[in-house]
Amino acid sequence: MSKIAVLGAGSWGTALSMVLVDNGHDVRLWTHREQQAEEINGSHRNDRYLKEIDLPAELVAYTDLERAVHEVDAILVVVPTKAIRQVASQLAKVLHHEVTLIHATKGIDPDSLKRVSEMLEEELPRSLYRELVVLSGPSHAEEVALGQPTTVAVSSRQIEEAEIAQDLFINERFRVYTNPDLVGVELGGALKNIIALGAGISDGLGYGDNAKSALITRGIAEISRLGVSMGASPLTFAGLTGVGDLIVTCTSPHSRNWRAGHLLGKGYAMDDVLEEMGMVVEGVRTTKAAYRLATEQNVELPITMGLYKVLFEDANPKDVVDQLMTRGRRHEMEDLEYGLGGHFSR
Amino acid sequence: MSKIAVLGAGSWGTALSMVLVDNGHDVRLWTHREQQAEEINGSHRNDRYLKEIDLPAELVAYTDLERAVHEVDAILVVVPTKAIRQVASQLAKVLHHEVTLIHATKGIDPDSLKRVSEMLEEELPRSLYRELVVLSGPSHAEEVALGQPTTVAVSSRQIEEAEIAQDLFINERFRVYTNPDLVGVELGGALKNIIALGAGISDGLGYGDNAKSALITRGIAEISRLGVSMGASPLTFAGLTGVGDLIVTCTSPHSRNWRAGHLLGKGYAMDDVLEEMGMVVEGVRTTKAAYRLATEQNVELPITMGLYKVLFEDANPKDVVDQLMTRGRRHEMEDLEYGLGGHFSR
Repeated sequence: MSKIAVLGAGSWGTALSMVLVDNGHDVRLWTHREQQAEEINGSHRNDRYLKEIDLPAELVAYTDLERAVHEVDAILVVVPTKAIRQVASQLAKVLHHEVTLIHATKGIDPDSLKRVSEMLEEELPRSLYRELVVLSGPSHAEEVALGQPTTVAVSSRQIEEAEIAQDLFINERFRVYTNPDLVGVELGGALKNIIALGAGISDGLGYGDNAKSALITRGIAEISRLGVSMGASPLTFAGLTGVGDLIVTCTSPHSRNWRAGHLLGKGYAMDDVLEEMGMVVEGVRTTKAAYRLATEQNVELPITMGLYKVLFEDANPKDVVDQLMTRGRRHEMEDLEYGLGGHFSR
Repeated sequence: MSKIAVLGAGSWGTALSMVLVDNGHDVRLWTHREQQAEEINGSHRNDRYLKEIDLPAELVAYTDLERAVHEVDAILVVVPTKAIRQVASQLAKVLHHEVTLIHATKGIDPDSLKRVSEMLEEELPRSLYRELVVLSGPSHAEEVALGQPTTVAVSSRQIEEAEIAQDLFINERFRVYTNPDLVGVELGGALKNIIALGAGISDGLGYGDNAKSALITRGIAEISRLGVSMGASPLTFAGLTGVGDLIVTCTSPHSRNWRAGHLLGKGYAMDDVLEEMGMVVEGVRTTKAAYRLATEQNVELPITMGLYKVLFEDANPKDVVDQLMTRGRRHEMEDLEYGLGGHFSR
């Protein structure tokens, strides 16, 4: 049994806490919201994020970060990307011993263009952790909370550290695999939200499954292309944290990013969509980050570029999707070989 | 304008005929069933296969194969896999000139273990066509018939021949890309039906999207592995005819193979499922073929093996899926590197 602090009581943080409690660990779930902590501790519910799901009584919420991380063996960070630096710098002030540090946040900072693990490394002194671990994969929080079978990957520069995280989380219903490609695992989870927004728009426009699966297929090649330019292995994008997460995010109404895209496709304005969602839509910020990265690295990302125009330049979603569908290429391999590094001669 | 015979008036053959009529071609849809031909010619409907969809009046059905192929420029074969040899040998008797020969049938013969193009080549004299073309991709017939945006690939050993087929089919709503890997394009379309049966079983058992996307992800690696052992390029499985077709088939109730799996997962017996479907479920025969191929080629296919036990050895679907979910491996790359040819050192 380990003592573990989970920072961030959104749907994913809460669901992962439930897995850890199931595995017999002593879990402290930190939130900065008093009212949410009271709901979790008093009625064992977190209804805004996990509707109608009973939380285990053993799961205790804290609002005091110092108390939450006191003597813990491991810390799991699951706050939204835009809160990562702030929470990490708070943590740096109150944590005084070395822990296993894991994060499960899927995003890229549109200002510094850093991945979440890079931001954590910048904000936290190296004496506080050995090697950072990323946990990612195809996983609706709602299903994990209900004990539905789920498979994820953990990655770290030191495989031993990934295996420690694997041992904390793994059980019969929650399968955890290790993957040595930290950059790829982290980027897959972040970038798929862009494609999920696009898939939502396609569905919102009333296009069918044929159109959506073509978009997803191109999406895989596209995020793989950007990932490889940033040092990831193309192989990782063929796995759980790449295509796996992309499929689950693009084909289920559980997905916030898909839902946001769906509303955009139906003609809602961006501001109304974000208000309607009431939760963070990571894909919107990630689109901005990927747009900037693509420009910097000179990588071609047609879906991301189109989405950027919809999100930030008021372009018409239908025009953008139609343009993606009918653009000039005639040979499939032009897309694929660029994405995955292979080469076909005519 | 070309004169084209489409052999096979199921949902896919009919939908593809509609695309060709849209493009201004003179299309003859051949079926051996008198009653079906009368329905198509009389009321311009093919209700058993494309419910409530009005067919263009220009689409003419024939039951006489010789008349249907008289002076045509191209022939598209879309009969079920088990009828391929019979129809091809009939065709050999009545066709007396060279045509562009295309097929859009997704299966492998469980007896001879041949792909559809290989069976056609065995049954038809070489004087009747230049190089065979395969058309495949993520495409529910129902959506194509409704003019929903769709993207497919065509492949041939001679790219020029694929380009002829591309020109016949391509329009604003039906995008056609060429791909030089005939074996990969053909196998992707056939093998994905196995994974779709498995995905349907998972859904039928009440498992969620997390479980299904993990299964699909492994499914891609698995069909890629078998495909590569048969001479396909791994890259093709990352494209429209691989992962694209897999996604559309595994995530939509339109898919017959998914529906058959779904019924199996709900506890129906195999015979009842096939009766309930009333149409050919290619995945059942393809599972048998892949099982035999895997044994011959010594390739590891855990999903196919599990499914074979459910379909032909009365294994319990829940036991098989649970076993797939919880099997011993702990490192994701064990699956992936084998599948896609990359290599990671620990």
